[in-house]
Amino acid sequence: MTKVFDAPDRFAETALQGFCAANADRVRAVPHGAVRAAPGPRGKVALLVGGGSGHYPAFLGYVGTGFADAAVAGDVFASPSTAWIHGVARAANRGGGVILGFGNYAGDVLNFGSAAERLRTEGIDARILAVTDDVASAKPDERAKRRGVAGDLPVFKIVGAAAEAGLDLDAVMAVAAKANGATVSFGVAFDGCTLPGQGTPLFTVDAGRVGMGLGIHGEPGISTQAMMSAVELARTLLDPLLAERPAGHGGRVAVVLNGLGRTKYEELFVLWHHLTGMLADAGLTPVNPEVGEFVTSLDMAGCSLTLTWLDDELEGHWCAPADAPAFRRGTVARPVADDAVETAAEAVSEIAQGSPESQDAGRCVAMLIGHVARALADAEEELGRIDAQAGDGDHGQGMARGSAAAAAAADQAVAAGAGAGTVLSLAGDAWADRAGGTSGALWGVALRAWGQALGDADRPSGETVAQGAQAAQDAIVRLGGARVGDKTLVDSLVPFVQVLNERVGAGETLGIAWAAAAARSTEAADATAGLTPRLGRARPLAERSLGHPDAGAISLALCARVVGANLPD
Amino acid sequence: MTKVFDAPDRFAETALQGFCAANADRVRAVPHGAVRAAPGPRGKVALLVGGGSGHYPAFLGYVGTGFADAAVAGDVFASPSTAWIHGVARAANRGGGVILGFGNYAGDVLNFGSAAERLRTEGIDARILAVTDDVASAKPDERAKRRGVAGDLPVFKIVGAAAEAGLDLDAVMAVAAKANGATVSFGVAFDGCTLPGQGTPLFTVDAGRVGMGLGIHGEPGISTQAMMSAVELARTLLDPLLAERPAGHGGRVAVVLNGLGRTKYEELFVLWHHLTGMLADAGLTPVNPEVGEFVTSLDMAGCSLTLTWLDDELEGHWCAPADAPAFRRGTVARPVADDAVETAAEAVSEIAQGSPESQDAGRCVAMLIGHVARALADAEEELGRIDAQAGDGDHGQGMARGSAAAAAAADQAVAAGAGAGTVLSLAGDAWADRAGGTSGALWGVALRAWGQALGDADRPSGETVAQGAQAAQDAIVRLGGARVGDKTLVDSLVPFVQVLNERVGAGETLGIAWAAAAARSTEAADATAGLTPRLGRARPLAERSLGHPDAGAISLALCARVVGANLPD
Repeated sequence: MTKVFDAPDRFAETALQGFCAANADRVRAVPHGAVRAAPGPRGKVALLVGGGSGHYPAFLGYVGTGFADAAVAGDVFASPSTAWIHGVARAANRGGGVILGFGNYAGDVLNFGSAAERLRTEGIDARILAVTDDVASAKPDERAKRRGVAGDLPVFKIVGAAAEAGLDLDAVMAVAAKANGATVSFGVAFDGCTLPGQGTPLFTVDAGRVGMGLGIHGEPGISTQAMMSAVELARTLLDPLLAERPAGHGGRVAVVLNGLGRTKYEELFVLWHHLTGMLADAGLTPVNPEVGEFVTSLDMAGCSLTLTWLDDELEGHWCAPADAPAFRRGTVARPVADDAVETAAEAVSEIAQGSPESQDAGRCVAMLIGHVARALADAEEELGRIDAQAGDGDHGQGMARGSAAAAAAADQAVAAGAGAGTVLSLAGDAWADRAGGTSGALWGVALRAWGQALGDADRPSGETVAQGAQAAQDAIVRLGGARVGDKTLVDSLVPFVQVLNERVGAGETLGIAWAAAAARSTEAADATAGLTPRLGRARPLAERSLGHPDAGAISLALCARVVGANLPD
Repeated sequence: MTKVFDAPDRFAETALQGFCAANADRVRAVPHGAVRAAPGPRGKVALLVGGGSGHYPAFLGYVGTGFADAAVAGDVFASPSTAWIHGVARAANRGGGVILGFGNYAGDVLNFGSAAERLRTEGIDARILAVTDDVASAKPDERAKRRGVAGDLPVFKIVGAAAEAGLDLDAVMAVAAKANGATVSFGVAFDGCTLPGQGTPLFTVDAGRVGMGLGIHGEPGISTQAMMSAVELARTLLDPLLAERPAGHGGRVAVVLNGLGRTKYEELFVLWHHLTGMLADAGLTPVNPEVGEFVTSLDMAGCSLTLTWLDDELEGHWCAPADAPAFRRGTVARPVADDAVETAAEAVSEIAQGSPESQDAGRCVAMLIGHVARALADAEEELGRIDAQAGDGDHGQGMARGSAAAAAAADQAVAAGAGAGTVLSLAGDAWADRAGGTSGALWGVALRAWGQALGDADRPSGETVAQGAQAAQDAIVRLGGARVGDKTLVDSLVPFVQVLNERVGAGETLGIAWAAAAARSTEAADATAGLTPRLGRARPLAERSLGHPDAGAISLALCARVVGANLPD
């Protein structure tokens, strides 16, 4: 039912431009996000919030005094890329460290985590804050697995107020952990939403039914039940939260009753009328309750209830003044816009010069990435077919798009005089930026880590290349959390890195060692489905597949072989 | 798609309670509405806004400093009754006069107009302000016929600021007239909305089509067109407004881009991105543009664009600080809530004592209303059938409900010692309150006017009764605007009043005169369809109807006959 758009793939970007234009007195546009027009004082901890678009006022509407310093906006329901987050975070940085706040979804975890790593390598103390408030998405003893929903509002509001109050980064992070741990939400859905340009809804709820605990992107809920009256619905929303009331808690709670888009204000007020009585019966006192639309899902029909179990510290921050386009509380003296806001997001693209030896090596790196990109373009269709057996079939497309962007970025970096490390790092950024998805983010963080191991001073040796491979593996495992056997690219990466390090350590040349490592990697990839993939041959793999090979493992092995075949002596 | 409700007929009232509970720091509940928790200074002009529910933030969300002093909420998409408006207006009154602001719809015009009359009889200078911004609903030379849509926001905001600035009533009304005259809107709809408890939408728009100029309750638009891109839609919204740019206007405009409920924020921002360029190309400068949901229609899909052609005075009021639950601008020092807010809305029900003679007459009036109520209850079904031939078939129900409430109110007034005038006035209030619709409002104002003519001091004479009938007719014609021949209750009322006055003037007793008048009234009602209605006889009228008699004329004649048959000598 999203009706107003031009090219669907430019929807989120155009919406961002329109948002910034409509709020030009409050925010300033930076690439892929917005920062306060009047930034906080130097040295202040900065709060960057973000995630996919389609959830307004989350997250752009939260940018303002007493709340967030900046927001980054991905495509609709898609995580912003690492590079986007990194760029906006640099623009938001006031020197006191940056907190990257997001809802706990795999893509966001990867990209915000990766951006935080990159910021730290640049000397900016960056921390991540994944909101985990949705009680329907995991049990209390698996709190870290819970998704983030409308708890974004109270958690980010409280963190923003703590930062505005001048607390240092560790202290704000302590408040953040407490706020997130004290925040619980439960939601219901009556009907799905439609992405711009799509002919059918992303998901549906049967007529006359209620999806209990359904996620804000249609993630599976707990059950469906027959439609109920408002008073029953109020009880349904509240009970799962009361079940998690901390022992001995005093009863003062921040409350957010959130409409997802199509469930309107009067309906929420009807619910609120019932909830006031139920909260009182439970001995709870709502403090500055918010009833309205705070974390939407396009025009999804449904609503959620959020409680934050307050203590004095959290209550102080929850009640503190704030002034953002979509959220105001109390009275805030509007700061004067600072025309000298650094356009740090754009300044990032200045390229450090490499040594002559490293520039040579950079040209070699760019050449190799070019070969990889061509090979992945050739394999795009077959990788897609393989992926479609177990996944959503977009792996080939993502790899082809990512590697093409990486090759172009590498060429640009070479032309600008970059060393091998910077060439590889920027190639990784571009890959993550354009490939999208989980594997794009992982490839990005891997290449960046590898590039940092190479550096821009010396000609890379076999040892530094092997160390770089290890750094890339470490980064992927740290961010992605997968182990060998999980049927991911880790299955073929780990044997590759192991053999490469063993052979280089045994004194073999890089070319020989790499070839052996690539061969072992290919064997491991094959093992993901008990067959021998022969990409590039005439007969498509998928047609004779006996199982579901992992496309990520296969494409990584392919890249290893292509590089091995083209490595100069 | 309205999913959250209990009993549908209590939806609006429960939503009002929930709204007041959620905003207890800002507003105070009064029967059928809300007033500022911290009222403006004594002597300030008060702005009351209102209309049907289902349009939040219109109108409750507008109550606050720098904006409205109070709002009154009718049922969903239905005008509040005269009594409701009157009660909330009394609570809002600060002694400087009251402006009653509403969108230009027939039911609102009647009820707000009637409430203003009643307030003036009580010594409160009340004025009405009907917003007429929808360019799709009438041509520029019929400005007064235009409906009110999202222009409510800028017009009421500007008027509220003028009142807050301390202007007197005439000066604020001059600003109001200028603001309304300078405000134009054009809207489109993609899909209809569903009232609480209804199984089907109130109206629909065909898939892939856009309803151009469709009203916010589904009123007919200009045309439907094929769905278009966002940039085309921006042009479509803007062009009809540019066509009404006043000659020589400088180009500074207040702008409201309003979502109707299901068309969400990101979509509006995409539109706004395109509109910024188009406004600039047209030489227009948006001043404090507002992009969001300001006048919704439950979950209707669609949006509208509003421009107010500013001059210095209007711009000053548009930009002035405001602080309401759903609209804030600039910085407002929050006034301290005044615990001494008079509960004037409730105090209205204190009943003045009549003289003994008038109390006797009051008992007679109550008895007659009781007869009328029983007759209308008997006739309910048949009146409904008659009405269904040309109208929506609810006339019998409305008349039965209204007269029953009037009879009960009359009995209560008698028990409280009221004179005939007060008995009849309160009966009229109750009638309008419970009957709903246009005819309920007209009966209410008629009985009130008649009651005022009778007074509470003297025993009513034939002359005062006939004068009261004339006053009732005058009130109906003034408010309703209908003439003889328009097929309304005026068709049978005018001959009744004429004959009653003639016969009383000729010295006949009231009983004789009344019987003659009722007979003439019945003849006139018959003439509305060229047949003789014989209500109460066995054979239903509708089954042998040759045309479409007007149910309102028929029921009025019936009441006249019933009263005539029961008048004491």
